[in-house]
Amino acid sequence: MFEAAELGQRISKKEYREREAQLRQSLLEAQFELKEAGFPVLVLLNGVDGAGKGEVANLLNEWMDARLIVTRAYDDPTTDEVEWPYFWRFWRDLPPAGRMGIFLKAWYTEPFLRRARGEISHEAFSAALSRIVAFEETLAVDGAVLLKFWLHLGKKQQKERFKALEKNPRTAWQVTKEDWEHWKQYDTFVPLAEHLIMRTSTGRAPWEIVECTDPLFRNLEIGASLLRGIRRGLEEAEARKKARELEKADGKKGRRYLPPELDLGTGGEGAYPVGTVLSRLDMAKKLTKEKYEHRLELLQGELSTLHRKAREKKLSMILVFEGWDAAGKGGAIRRILRPLDARYAQVISVAAPTEEERAHHYLWRFWRHLPRAGRVTIFDRSWYGRVLVERIEGFAAPEEWMRAYAEINHFEGELLEHGIGILKFWIHITPDEQEARFRARAESPLKSWKLTEEDWRNRDRWGAYERAVNDMVERTSTRLAPWILVEGNDKRYARVKVLETVCQGFRDLLAGKFQPRPRGAKAKRTAVQV
Amino acid sequence: MFEAAELGQRISKKEYREREAQLRQSLLEAQFELKEAGFPVLVLLNGVDGAGKGEVANLLNEWMDARLIVTRAYDDPTTDEVEWPYFWRFWRDLPPAGRMGIFLKAWYTEPFLRRARGEISHEAFSAALSRIVAFEETLAVDGAVLLKFWLHLGKKQQKERFKALEKNPRTAWQVTKEDWEHWKQYDTFVPLAEHLIMRTSTGRAPWEIVECTDPLFRNLEIGASLLRGIRRGLEEAEARKKARELEKADGKKGRRYLPPELDLGTGGEGAYPVGTVLSRLDMAKKLTKEKYEHRLELLQGELSTLHRKAREKKLSMILVFEGWDAAGKGGAIRRILRPLDARYAQVISVAAPTEEERAHHYLWRFWRHLPRAGRVTIFDRSWYGRVLVERIEGFAAPEEWMRAYAEINHFEGELLEHGIGILKFWIHITPDEQEARFRARAESPLKSWKLTEEDWRNRDRWGAYERAVNDMVERTSTRLAPWILVEGNDKRYARVKVLETVCQGFRDLLAGKFQPRPRGAKAKRTAVQV
Repeated sequence: MFEAAELGQRISKKEYREREAQLRQSLLEAQFELKEAGFPVLVLLNGVDGAGKGEVANLLNEWMDARLIVTRAYDDPTTDEVEWPYFWRFWRDLPPAGRMGIFLKAWYTEPFLRRARGEISHEAFSAALSRIVAFEETLAVDGAVLLKFWLHLGKKQQKERFKALEKNPRTAWQVTKEDWEHWKQYDTFVPLAEHLIMRTSTGRAPWEIVECTDPLFRNLEIGASLLRGIRRGLEEAEARKKARELEKADGKKGRRYLPPELDLGTGGEGAYPVGTVLSRLDMAKKLTKEKYEHRLELLQGELSTLHRKAREKKLSMILVFEGWDAAGKGGAIRRILRPLDARYAQVISVAAPTEEERAHHYLWRFWRHLPRAGRVTIFDRSWYGRVLVERIEGFAAPEEWMRAYAEINHFEGELLEHGIGILKFWIHITPDEQEARFRARAESPLKSWKLTEEDWRNRDRWGAYERAVNDMVERTSTRLAPWILVEGNDKRYARVKVLETVCQGFRDLLAGKFQPRPRGAKAKRTAVQV
Repeated sequence: MFEAAELGQRISKKEYREREAQLRQSLLEAQFELKEAGFPVLVLLNGVDGAGKGEVANLLNEWMDARLIVTRAYDDPTTDEVEWPYFWRFWRDLPPAGRMGIFLKAWYTEPFLRRARGEISHEAFSAALSRIVAFEETLAVDGAVLLKFWLHLGKKQQKERFKALEKNPRTAWQVTKEDWEHWKQYDTFVPLAEHLIMRTSTGRAPWEIVECTDPLFRNLEIGASLLRGIRRGLEEAEARKKARELEKADGKKGRRYLPPELDLGTGGEGAYPVGTVLSRLDMAKKLTKEKYEHRLELLQGELSTLHRKAREKKLSMILVFEGWDAAGKGGAIRRILRPLDARYAQVISVAAPTEEERAHHYLWRFWRHLPRAGRVTIFDRSWYGRVLVERIEGFAAPEEWMRAYAEINHFEGELLEHGIGILKFWIHITPDEQEARFRARAESPLKSWKLTEEDWRNRDRWGAYERAVNDMVERTSTRLAPWILVEGNDKRYARVKVLETVCQGFRDLLAGKFQPRPRGAKAKRTAVQV
C-alpha cells in the first residue's frame, strides 16, 4: 500500500515558490467562499512520526486566515474526560459551518496505539474503526468535508530524518524518546496502518497517503488536495441549494418535498389513524389518590437509594421525555427530580438551538450536554425532535430526517457502549384529553402562559404526528434503549408508571443489563472505550 | 444576627394557598418580562442543612417556567476542575441575559467548610470572601440581579427536623450522616456564618436571612423577595435605557457620551499626541537577518525546553497580543507556536462575540477559553478590546469601559492566584510604517484580504487609540502581569524581543515569580485556592 509513497518524489525550490504562491492565493479564495457556505471542513493529519504533521498544521495556518481555523491536538484523555463517551471531546471541538478544523492525534490515534501495544484484540481494533466510520459518515452526510491525510516516510527515511534533526543542536529537541521507540516498531505499525486505511477509507472520507521524503513536495500535495476538497464541497453545497430551489419552484411553496408514501398530509382535525403503536394503548388506566400517594412516596425513596448506589459505581442514566403538548412531561420530571441529589441530576429543556448550535450538526448540542459519570440527565424534549417536529414542519428535508433514525441509533449506541443507561418515554394522551387540558389551562391564570396558538395549530396535524411517533418507536426502540409508551390520560397513573420504570431502569443499570456485551466478558474500563 | 430568624414565624395553610396563587402569577409575569430584558438573575441558596434549600429550588422550578431557569449544585471540584482557577466553573454556568440561575453549594460553600474544618486561617477565609465580593460586584455592576438567601434554622429546630424525617421510613433517606455531623458543629458554624454574611453583604448583593421553621412561611418569604428583586432589576434596566435615549436625543447621534476630559475626539489624521508611553519608544531598533536567524533558532529551542518543564510542573502561561493593525501580531505568534507541542498550546483569535457570548458579561467568553494546567494559551486580541476598540467606537458606555480596568485587574488577579503566568504584548509601529505596510498588502495578492476599509478608517483615530493604549498600560500593567511594549517597525527585532520575553517569562514562572505570595509561604496546592 505504501510503495507509491516511497518513490522519492521531489520538487525544486524554484518550482515550489511559483506553485506555492498560486496555491495560497487559491486556498485563501476558497476559504473565503467557505466562510459563507453552510458546512465545515475537517482536516485530519495522521501518519508516521517525523513526517511533519505539526509542520503542515503550522503551514496551513500561515497560508490561510488562521482566525477561521481551529487546530486541535490530543493527549491521552484526562481522568475527567474518560467519564464521557469516547467521541465526546472530538464532538466538542468540531468546527462550525464555514470554518476549518485541523486535527492531530485525534480519533484514530488511541485505537491504533492500543492495538500496536497489544492492549486490545484485532476484533476490538476493527470494531473501533467501524465506530469511527459511523462517526465520520454522520458528519460527512450532513455536508462536512473530511480530508484525511496519512503522512508517510519509509523506515530508512524516517531514521535519516531523526538523525539529521538530532545532529543539529538547535533542532535536536524536536526528536523525542517516543519517536525512536515508535521507529523501532515500524514493522509492526505498517500492517496496522494498512488495515486502518483500508477499513476507514470511505467514499465520503477517503484517506490520501502522502509521501513526505521531500517537505516541499508534501506541502504542495496536501495544499492542492485541500483546495480540491474545499472546492468540491462548495460545488456540492451549491448543487444542493439549487435542487431545493427547484423543488420549491415546483409548487411546494417553501414546504420541502416528501415522497408520496411518507407525505400523509395533516390527517385532518384530530384524525386518529388506525394501527399505530399508540392506538393500542389502554387509555382508561387510572390510579386512586390514596394508591398514588402511597406508591409515589415509596418509589421516590427507592429511587433516592438506587441513584446513590449508581453514583457510587459511577454509572450514568439518561432519561428522555417526549409527548404531546400538555401530556404532563413536566409533572412527571419533577416527581423524578425531587428524590435526586441536585448535584448529580440535571434537566435539559430543549428549545430552539442557539446560533452556535445551528452552525453544527444537529446532534452536536446533545453531545455537549452529556452527563459525566454518576449523573442523571433528563432531557425535556430531545434529539427526537428531528424525526417529530422537524419532520412534520419540514424544518428537516426528508433525506435528513429519514437518515436520522440510523444516526440516533449510532449516537445512543455510543452512550450504551460507554455504560450509560437510556430510557425514553413517550407520554400519550388522547385528543379529547388534550383539548380538555388546553381549555383548563386557558382558564387558569397560573397556566395560561403554557398555551400558545401553535399548540392549537399542532392539533390539526395529530395524524401526521402520530404516524411520526409510530415510525420513531418502530425504528429506534431497541432492547437496550427502549421507548416506554405511557398512558397519560390519568396523570397519577402516568407518573407512577414513569417512576416505576425509572427504578427498574436503575436496577438494570446496577445489574449491568444496559451493557452491549455481558459484563464479565468485558475488559476493565480503562482510559478509552474502543 | 440570627435572633430575628428564630421567632417561630408561621403562616396558616389557608393564607398560604391564597398568597401562593397570587405570588406565582406575579412571578410568572416578572419572569416573562425578564426574558426580554438584558440582564440575568442569580439566586443563591445557602444556609443550614435541613432548612430546605433543595425544596426551594424545586419549588421555584415548579412555580415558574423551568425552561428559563438553570439550576446548578456543586460537588467538590474534580481532579480536572482544580486545574482551572476557582471561579471558572461558576463563570461557566452563569445564566445568560433574560434567564435565571439557581445556585446551591456554590462559591461560598468551599471556603466556609474549609474554615469550619480549620483547614484555612481566618485571614485566608476573609481573603476568599473579598474575592467573592469582587466577583459578585463584577456581575452586579453589569446589571445582573443577585439575590442571596441564607436559610436559617435554630439548633433545636434543626434537630427536630432531622428526627421527624428519620422517624418516617419513607423520608429517612433524606437525612445523611454529614447532616448530623454538621449539626454537631452548629455552634462553630454560627460565628462563621455571621462573619460571612457581614463581609459579603454589599449594596448590590445583600444577604437575606430567612427563617425556615415553617416551610410555608419560608416559601412565601423567598418568593416575595425574588419578585421584588426581579422587579427592581427591570426598573433599573428601564431607567438605564431611558438615560441612554436622553443622551442620544441630546445630539450625540448614537455615539455614547464621553466626559470632556476623556473625549479626545479623533485626534486628527495620524495625529501623534505628545507624552504617551508609546511616543517614548526607540522605533529605530533593528536586527540584521543573520543575527535574527541565529537568535530565533536558539530561542525557539530554549522555549521548547522551558515549555516542557512548565508542563511537567503543570504550570500554565497566558500570552496576550494587542497592537496596531499590521503591527505583526500574527507573525510573532507563529514564531512562538512553532516550538510548542500542539497538544498543549492554543491560539484564541478574538473576533466579534457570538449570540451566546453577547448574552453574558463581556469577560465570560475569556473565562470560557482559559487553559487547563500545563498549557500555553495565546490570545490574538483579548479582553483589552473593552478599553481599546469598544471605548473608541463607543460600543461600551464610558462607565462600562472605565470600570473595566479594575475588572480586568481582578480577572488577571484570579489567574495569577491560581499560579498562571501572564505576559501582555503591545506591538507598536509608527503611522508611517503602518501606511507602508498597508500599501504593500494592497498590492500583494496573498495579503490584500487582510486589509479592509475599516483599517484605513482606524488610522483617522490614531490619536484616540494611542491615548487609550496609554491609559490601558498605565492602569493594567502590574508587576505580576506586565505590559511589554514592543518596537515593531523592524519585524525581526520585534519577534526576537517577544521570544526573549516569553522565554524569560517561563523562567520566572518556573522560579515561582508570578505567584502573588512567595512560594515557600504557600500551602500545598489543594482542591481549591481560597
